[in-house]
Amino acid sequence: MKRGFGSDNHSGICPEVLKAISDANVNHALAYGDDEYCARVETIFKQYFGNQASVFFVFNGTGANTLCIDAMCRSHEAVVCAESAHVNVDECGSVQRVVSCRLLTVPTPDGKLTPELVKTQLHGFGFEHHSQPKAITITQSTELGTLYSLDEIKALVDLAHEYNMYLHIDGARLANAAVALGCSFNEMTTDLGVDVISFGGTKNGLMIGEAIVFLNPELARYFKYRRKQALQLCSKMRFLAVQFEAYFKDDLWKRNAEHSNKMAQLLYNKVKDIKSLKVMYPVQANGVFVQLPREIWTELQKHYFFYDWDYDKNVVRWLCSFDTTEEDIYMFVEKIKELTINN
Amino acid sequence: MKRGFGSDNHSGICPEVLKAISDANVNHALAYGDDEYCARVETIFKQYFGNQASVFFVFNGTGANTLCIDAMCRSHEAVVCAESAHVNVDECGSVQRVVSCRLLTVPTPDGKLTPELVKTQLHGFGFEHHSQPKAITITQSTELGTLYSLDEIKALVDLAHEYNMYLHIDGARLANAAVALGCSFNEMTTDLGVDVISFGGTKNGLMIGEAIVFLNPELARYFKYRRKQALQLCSKMRFLAVQFEAYFKDDLWKRNAEHSNKMAQLLYNKVKDIKSLKVMYPVQANGVFVQLPREIWTELQKHYFFYDWDYDKNVVRWLCSFDTTEEDIYMFVEKIKELTINN
Amino acid sequence: MKRGFGSDNHSGICPEVLKAISDANVNHALAYGDDEYCARVETIFKQYFGNQASVFFVFNGTGANTLCIDAMCRSHEAVVCAESAHVNVDECGSVQRVVSCRLLTVPTPDGKLTPELVKTQLHGFGFEHHSQPKAITITQSTELGTLYSLDEIKALVDLAHEYNMYLHIDGARLANAAVALGCSFNEMTTDLGVDVISFGGTKNGLMIGEAIVFLNPELARYFKYRRKQALQLCSKMRFLAVQFEAYFKDDLWKRNAEHSNKMAQLLYNKVKDIKSLKVMYPVQANGVFVQLPREIWTELQKHYFFYDWDYDKNVVRWLCSFDTTEEDIYMFVEKIKELTINN
Amino acid sequence: MKRGFGSDNHSGICPEVLKAISDANVNHALAYGDDEYCARVETIFKQYFGNQASVFFVFNGTGANTLCIDAMCRSHEAVVCAESAHVNVDECGSVQRVVSCRLLTVPTPDGKLTPELVKTQLHGFGFEHHSQPKAITITQSTELGTLYSLDEIKALVDLAHEYNMYLHIDGARLANAAVALGCSFNEMTTDLGVDVISFGGTKNGLMIGEAIVFLNPELARYFKYRRKQALQLCSKMRFLAVQFEAYFKDDLWKRNAEHSNKMAQLLYNKVKDIKSLKVMYPVQANGVFVQLPREIWTELQKHYFFYDWDYDKNVVRWLCSFDTTEEDIYMFVEKIKELTINN
Repeated sequence: MKRGFGSDNHSGICPEVLKAISDANVNHALAYGDDEYCARVETIFKQYFGNQASVFFVFNGTGANTLCIDAMCRSHEAVVCAESAHVNVDECGSVQRVVSCRLLTVPTPDGKLTPELVKTQLHGFGFEHHSQPKAITITQSTELGTLYSLDEIKALVDLAHEYNMYLHIDGARLANAAVALGCSFNEMTTDLGVDVISFGGTKNGLMIGEAIVFLNPELARYFKYRRKQALQLCSKMRFLAVQFEAYFKDDLWKRNAEHSNKMAQLLYNKVKDIKSLKVMYPVQANGVFVQLPREIWTELQKHYFFYDWDYDKNVVRWLCSFDTTEEDIYMFVEKIKELTINN
Repeated sequence: MKRGFGSDNHSGICPEVLKAISDANVNHALAYGDDEYCARVETIFKQYFGNQASVFFVFNGTGANTLCIDAMCRSHEAVVCAESAHVNVDECGSVQRVVSCRLLTVPTPDGKLTPELVKTQLHGFGFEHHSQPKAITITQSTELGTLYSLDEIKALVDLAHEYNMYLHIDGARLANAAVALGCSFNEMTTDLGVDVISFGGTKNGLMIGEAIVFLNPELARYFKYRRKQALQLCSKMRFLAVQFEAYFKDDLWKRNAEHSNKMAQLLYNKVKDIKSLKVMYPVQANGVFVQLPREIWTELQKHYFFYDWDYDKNVVRWLCSFDTTEEDIYMFVEKIKELTINN
Repeated sequence: MKRGFGSDNHSGICPEVLKAISDANVNHALAYGDDEYCARVETIFKQYFGNQASVFFVFNGTGANTLCIDAMCRSHEAVVCAESAHVNVDECGSVQRVVSCRLLTVPTPDGKLTPELVKTQLHGFGFEHHSQPKAITITQSTELGTLYSLDEIKALVDLAHEYNMYLHIDGARLANAAVALGCSFNEMTTDLGVDVISFGGTKNGLMIGEAIVFLNPELARYFKYRRKQALQLCSKMRFLAVQFEAYFKDDLWKRNAEHSNKMAQLLYNKVKDIKSLKVMYPVQANGVFVQLPREIWTELQKHYFFYDWDYDKNVVRWLCSFDTTEEDIYMFVEKIKELTINN
Repeated sequence: MKRGFGSDNHSGICPEVLKAISDANVNHALAYGDDEYCARVETIFKQYFGNQASVFFVFNGTGANTLCIDAMCRSHEAVVCAESAHVNVDECGSVQRVVSCRLLTVPTPDGKLTPELVKTQLHGFGFEHHSQPKAITITQSTELGTLYSLDEIKALVDLAHEYNMYLHIDGARLANAAVALGCSFNEMTTDLGVDVISFGGTKNGLMIGEAIVFLNPELARYFKYRRKQALQLCSKMRFLAVQFEAYFKDDLWKRNAEHSNKMAQLLYNKVKDIKSLKVMYPVQANGVFVQLPREIWTELQKHYFFYDWDYDKNVVRWLCSFDTTEEDIYMFVEKIKELTINN
């Protein structure tokens, strides 16, 4: 398939990650996480997230998000999220099925919650007809390619804790956020009081696998049972663990994320002045959202696969990946220009 | 970790499978299964299971079994299974959580259902206080290392269909059964009228991944949505698909399964005459179940990891794998003998 | 407790209904609906809703709505509803728990969906990441005391069917709507192609009990099992059935609904010209929604119980009941006037 | 319908109970339990069960049992019960749907669990593949008409607490047990350390309504939300509450239960010497289970409705009710004798 900008999971496995899998493929190891590899990698996570952190590997991002919510909420409770949140629009109702709780959605201009927006949902406490708000989930970087500053995260954490609620980060692209903000994972999460994180790997070079990092230890209490019951326990777990070992080694996560962010900037710079296109949100991570005339869109999709983001408003999403090349961008932009001239 | 007989998923990735992953790691591919690799592998499955077969990859065996049951049953319906079935005892209530239906369990002498045993559960049809029996699930080879003959499967399929029910095979070790029976997958499933199969790979040399094979097309109707909602949709799906491609190529599945079965026979032959041990079930696939005095058990577990199968009856489970060597067995048996003499 | 306007279920049992319960309290009757009373009442429902109608009694409105949605949708499907819908805001997540599907909510000015509003949610068909829209639910009369005209219902039914979806009416106050529109139940539902109705009784004089009326027979297929499993099967069912018999006899439903609507008009007329109050929506059934200064609100609640409807906007809800008297209204309005003068 | 022995919920409403409903039918009352009636009845329950008791009304027995289990167990946990338990065989999988946890069933000779029987299920603690045992549920009097002595209950409570588990009593017929044992409710429950009770009313003369009595206050923590979400919150709650008020007044519960037990003894005495019949279990409460030749059974069912209890073993269930008369029994026995002579 032609290389393109459809998704950061259209790319393959980062070579260092594949090598780690291969290197771990010796002899026997206990299944389900009771092996030396997993123990080793847990230590690494503690270095990045602090000693109170515990880590559990799961298969995919939907699994990570759903199980984080399951750890925070009973079915009669509820999670506040942006209307554009992945858990709301892109998981086919996993939360409703697996956790059986409500999502309290809030429209946002840029994919970001604020304390003011969240507060519109913080009512009905103690009223049995109303699902009880118990958690806030934010995505960092967001589904719209925007970023929360550390202060903005802190304000949401404080709000959550003031109401005896938890704060969860969907960090499918947490690495992209960290490099963009120039901060460590610790500074963006543990230091701010975040309770639990879906720590993504797949979109930044892993083959299969996400990590759930509990910073608030009480949330991990029943987790091992609930992961198993919810179909997310891997048998040959060492092969998930070592991918993360490679991910942290020599700052691979950082290099990959810096690269994809940089490529997004390049793409942004190349298209921002094309007259018939309009970039919709600040390009702060690895995504560029563009409004473009339907006829150009249609033509462009004949050459490149990408998702309609908002069909009614003619907005599409382009994502850069750890393996996106400058040449990929030049060719793509050239095609766009060719179409915009002809149309 | 020391090589042993704890589980057939303590072994790693079969080299041919790892190579296939590596070979597929080029360029971009559409995510979620819409890629050329998945298309290619679907064709292969049709060769083995017939043209009406459709295949969907999932992450693990619990996911495969649970989603097969989800495809067969609504929550007010029920599945008949052996009391010893993996879905009943080893999945922490996944069916109860994800499908929310009842399992109607039947005690069996050897892990195998028979029409007579199943019939004890076939009542209450039309009575709203009773979960409506809608499916039978059997495991081939069974959790106790025993085998259904083709006739035995046929009889259960016929019973199921007579009652307007479905028959599912938990085939986590279907390859071991096929080589033991000397038949093709087709002969063991499609030709007999089986409706749907959890087709295992992980226990026979894959890294991660199982396949659900629908032989009855009506069961596949909503499957793609339900797989996504139940957290089992892989993004970089090509890396699941190509493992199965390698699995079928040059009869890898067969060689691996023949080997582990053969090793189990060797182990069986080496231990069957040790006086203080009693082999519990016919050794027909890759598992040997042995009753042994508690003091030997305790000592042996200091040197080898293995699961207590039935603690009260002093029965343990030993499994052979695609990479078990004759030397592994010799050393293991030597240790047992040493302990039995000393005790 | 002081009589007031807090809810139409603060009133008691209509005398005719209580008498029917008493009259049915003779001898034995089969439990769970297999009795002569239920058979008789089913016939009555067919007179009102057509011969294809089937009726099932449940305990309460939340049960009725949830089980109607359960009959229309699997967990991977979704229901379009107004943001203000009872199923969305007042049932503590029952749909999410019992059906495990998504609600696709749409903000509305007056509690009413329109085809245009619904269409904003009709996308993502065939896309496995998106819950598949399968039903529309409307409330008649709405939670805001407004009404759908027959044409408006028809337009929504047509839209639903065009998309292979179902249309459900939450008819907790269907009687109030029928008398306000001057039409029969048939004309408002069956004739328009409505698929299923939560037919309310409790808010219009019954003790306990709602009816689910299936107009689309395919939806009733598994209903008896699902009602039982979802905790809504009554044992001494005759006592639910005969309440509905009394409800239909001599147009009791009509008299009660006409009365409560008329009382709401009286209340509206008495308060509409009070300067510090603002009536928020057209008063078309038995509810009046009023915006009033917080200090008056606070004082008034010391004398009368009523619900804050929108705390941030200072809106409260006042409902009239089958037993509301003109004197109740005079006293209430007098108290309001007294407070508005003093404030 | 002819009076008979099909079920103790084929009878109607005890006159005192109906009168209480009628008496409460004055003026308005807050809905959902916030009324003076409910407050009053909670006080009564505390007199019978101790001051730490809290009571919540629900609609039916399946609702009561399911919500008690929901209060004790998360979905990854499990409840030990007798194979013959109502929650296992007669609720169409309500626990599996609403709580989504496993039932660990144990075959029993007489419907009664013992510590020895329960212990067969108490393993796998800490093992994530196994649903974690968290509660024991027993039925008093049992589904087979037998009784637990106080010592037997105490032994099970102690076992439960030793394992950090809860003990629940399905007391659909708790009154029958109390009068048979000659003890108070307190002595049978609170004094023994029981955690929570489904306190039945319907089978002993109420119209609709069961009570959940929490003796262990921690279990009540989220109950009000979970009752609402699980469709069991009644709006005009006063009409459930006052039924229980009447139930306790002047020992109505006792008189009713004593009567139905006495009638069961009479029935037992009349049939125990009929040669072709065999009484299956000790007749300790209001039920008589009889094995009788199929041809007599078939004939008898033409005249009387009753349930097949165990079709394969030709066992049927006959229950006496608060309104069973001696004449009912004489006529029934006469018919049986007539048939046994002719057959």
